[in-house]
Amino acid sequence: MSTILKSMTIEQFVAQSVGKWRSMRSGHSLAFQQFEDVLSEVIIESIEKDDSAVQDLLSTATSNQGHSSDIVAPFRMEWSAESDWEPEDPSQVSSGSCLIIPLKKNDYSGILIRSVGYAESELAESTYQFLDDGTFLLTTHYEQSMAEERIWFVSDNVRCRSSVLKTSAGSGVLQTSFASEVRRVKA
Amino acid sequence: MSTILKSMTIEQFVAQSVGKWRSMRSGHSLAFQQFEDVLSEVIIESIEKDDSAVQDLLSTATSNQGHSSDIVAPFRMEWSAESDWEPEDPSQVSSGSCLIIPLKKNDYSGILIRSVGYAESELAESTYQFLDDGTFLLTTHYEQSMAEERIWFVSDNVRCRSSVLKTSAGSGVLQTSFASEVRRVKA
Repeated sequence: MSTILKSMTIEQFVAQSVGKWRSMRSGHSLAFQQFEDVLSEVIIESIEKDDSAVQDLLSTATSNQGHSSDIVAPFRMEWSAESDWEPEDPSQVSSGSCLIIPLKKNDYSGILIRSVGYAESELAESTYQFLDDGTFLLTTHYEQSMAEERIWFVSDNVRCRSSVLKTSAGSGVLQTSFASEVRRVKA
Repeated sequence: MSTILKSMTIEQFVAQSVGKWRSMRSGHSLAFQQFEDVLSEVIIESIEKDDSAVQDLLSTATSNQGHSSDIVAPFRMEWSAESDWEPEDPSQVSSGSCLIIPLKKNDYSGILIRSVGYAESELAESTYQFLDDGTFLLTTHYEQSMAEERIWFVSDNVRCRSSVLKTSAGSGVLQTSFASEVRRVKA
């Protein structure tokens, strides 16, 4: 009767993530008990390993010099969001993009280099691993905070993404978020 | 650099869940792209195995006759919610309670009997299992739908809960939800 668990590799994960997604995202500010609901579009595209942007980012991430041979399935993520945080200005749109390079350690874990971090706008290095059901687990230490993100597919065309932002020491949980992402199927 | 994974048993999970929680919950209706944000209080209490309510529920759940020896850590969950779904009536409060009986198969999986299901208001039997990081994974088949819930602790006093509701066939995802729950520490 148990669900059969099936893990994933980073190559499979990126291949399944490539595409155009419609995202519903809710942010929870725990101290203030405030909700922030955002609709956005997310586009994920594969990039060639020898793209100059990949090489530039890798050379900036100093701790990984000499490991360019471990690069697996780099990709770019773009998003454009319309937030209801300020209802008096519904046209407020935030957007951005980010280059992401996985460096594989073994089939189920490795390092992820991002040109822009989730919690702070700076280059971020995360560790990733896959749980035994294929959930992608990402841990990032920033100067002031620490983020734990998880992404899991509930079907080929729906994925869920959660994040928890803690203080650097790890004791206080500052905010959480959850996104439901539905693939935009080509017309 | 990888996070050290640590699984859980149902006894540990229930013990850590017992208490009073302040919950922020966001529901995502995927077809309509609608958000529903709810603040609520959740109370989780242990019950004795030989409580008559436990025996009554067990005798109703016919498929588990003869397995009462597998009962582990039954508990009651109560919730009272204030929804913003109808902002013209902010005092709208929904509340309820539910008796839950885990039947242990082995350290990491088993069956959960609930007096009231998550997706449909009827007795529900779910299968549960723990992922290798201690995430509690619950799968319930209802007549018209199928729910997958996950609960994980991000600290001793903060837990996250997500749910995905699919059509019975499992192909269509109808709605998702995510709750951030903070333990109310005694004054």
